Amino acid sequence: MPGKKTAFQGEHGAFSEEAALAMVGKSAQSIACDTFDSLFKLVKSGRVQYGVLPIENSLVGSVQDNNNSLLESELYIVGETQLRIVHCLIGQPGSSIKTIRKVYSHPVALDQCRTFFKKHASLEPVTFFDTAGAVKMVASSGDRQIAAIASPLAARLYKMKLIRKSVEDRKFNYTRFLLVSREPRRVRGTAKTSIAFSVKSEPGALFKALSVFALRDIDLTKIESHPSRKQAWEYHFFVDFLGSTEDEPVINALNHLTEIAHFVTVLGCYPRWVEK
Amino acid sequence: MPGKKTAFQGEHGAFSEEAALAMVGKSAQSIACDTFDSLFKLVKSGRVQYGVLPIENSLVGSVQDNNNSLLESELYIVGETQLRIVHCLIGQPGSSIKTIRKVYSHPVALDQCRTFFKKHASLEPVTFFDTAGAVKMVASSGDRQIAAIASPLAARLYKMKLIRKSVEDRKFNYTRFLLVSREPRRVRGTAKTSIAFSVKSEPGALFKALSVFALRDIDLTKIESHPSRKQAWEYHFFVDFLGSTEDEPVINALNHLTEIAHFVTVLGCYPRWVEK
Repeated sequence: MPGKKTAFQGEHGAFSEEAALAMVGKSAQSIACDTFDSLFKLVKSGRVQYGVLPIENSLVGSVQDNNNSLLESELYIVGETQLRIVHCLIGQPGSSIKTIRKVYSHPVALDQCRTFFKKHASLEPVTFFDTAGAVKMVASSGDRQIAAIASPLAARLYKMKLIRKSVEDRKFNYTRFLLVSREPRRVRGTAKTSIAFSVKSEPGALFKALSVFALRDIDLTKIESHPSRKQAWEYHFFVDFLGSTEDEPVINALNHLTEIAHFVTVLGCYPRWVEK
Repeated sequence: MPGKKTAFQGEHGAFSEEAALAMVGKSAQSIACDTFDSLFKLVKSGRVQYGVLPIENSLVGSVQDNNNSLLESELYIVGETQLRIVHCLIGQPGSSIKTIRKVYSHPVALDQCRTFFKKHASLEPVTFFDTAGAVKMVASSGDRQIAAIASPLAARLYKMKLIRKSVEDRKFNYTRFLLVSREPRRVRGTAKTSIAFSVKSEPGALFKALSVFALRDIDLTKIESHPSRKQAWEYHFFVDFLGSTEDEPVINALNHLTEIAHFVTVLGCYPRWVEK
């Protein structure tokens, strides 16, 4: 399948690019985007077939407002994957922990390596827009006093030295990524469905909404509430459940939910990710 | 009430310090902390009476893992408040939009001022650890080519020029803050209670958990799921509801919940914040 252009946010070598390869396959032609806004625009325009979105991390939870952006984008989720996040200290060839003074990376990545920085007090963490971008900057600087924290992929890509592997505090650090596209996908078998809805602000409203799934033994795998971007403290609920939008109980549950909710949007139906 | 020491994360002039003053009163003696870790330690040790935690923002949702940190801290929530977030462009006296080249701030703050940066393409946004810290850095630099994005309070505190007020994209940008302490508070009247719990991973488990509130007409004001930090993809639920832990229906609901949940923790009971 040649020419499956897939947009991701960040510089080449970002974790999102790794996720793109995992979901689309080695033939994926990955396109780096500065912002999620430009990623959504590229996919919506049809100039690229897919976009990759980090959606939640096992340590820090939801990735900011990608949930709401997805809802507003009118794109469909067509795939999911999980990546173990391995942070590495990456520097110029010839550099070592002793030569390095400053370590650049995304604030979240730096924050996930606190133990490492406590142990190596001579290294100063400095915030940067993204992890792979920090490696690119180190590569072009030629400076052996600076390093970056990023993925092993970024080290390979920019031909930099992987000085120390796995410097993250917690090893069960996973990020879940979604693949989005202009067209929905039809899935049978071990499918997962993602929806968004809002309910009236009255006692028991969410309970009634969840009853449509409980009454049909549909298994929820995620529920989150996020503030609507249209009105302060009005919430949207984001729910994932096992099942396809072509299954009878799912069709009935969604019909039932429209009786209760202000709005119900199916964000997508896709094969459930299973660890290989 | 003299000597009510209140710890907040960030530099003096941070939005959290404004929230501290709003919750504890003008007599609050605010103590700046580098990290939330050190804030929790200060409050637990009893060296300060209170700590301030930003917990959710109306645009970006939950503040990272402050929910889980609060659960692990064994501290109690004793108050809440909301602040409207007003971002300002702040520079040296004598500086103006024309003299400025780089604008420093926290990545979230920069991201909330995209329209402003699009309109003023000559200004380059640069990430910094926190908003008020960026103003402090600009103040000590004496450089009229750099500026910061932060609160009006930070501009006043560091005697810097407030070049442009309210440069944020969306005006309904509110952050909710919690006040935490070593001792729980007894509250009657218009109280709110925050709890955390986890449920068995089986269909309908969350539905059953929420039934304990719905059956007693207890009004939920927030529900969130956050990944447990102990095991990947195991979720903790964080629920706020109206009522005091001294009210009969609340006592019954919490007892009922213990029959269903793996664990139930009352994070605190406190007067409900009402707009003045």
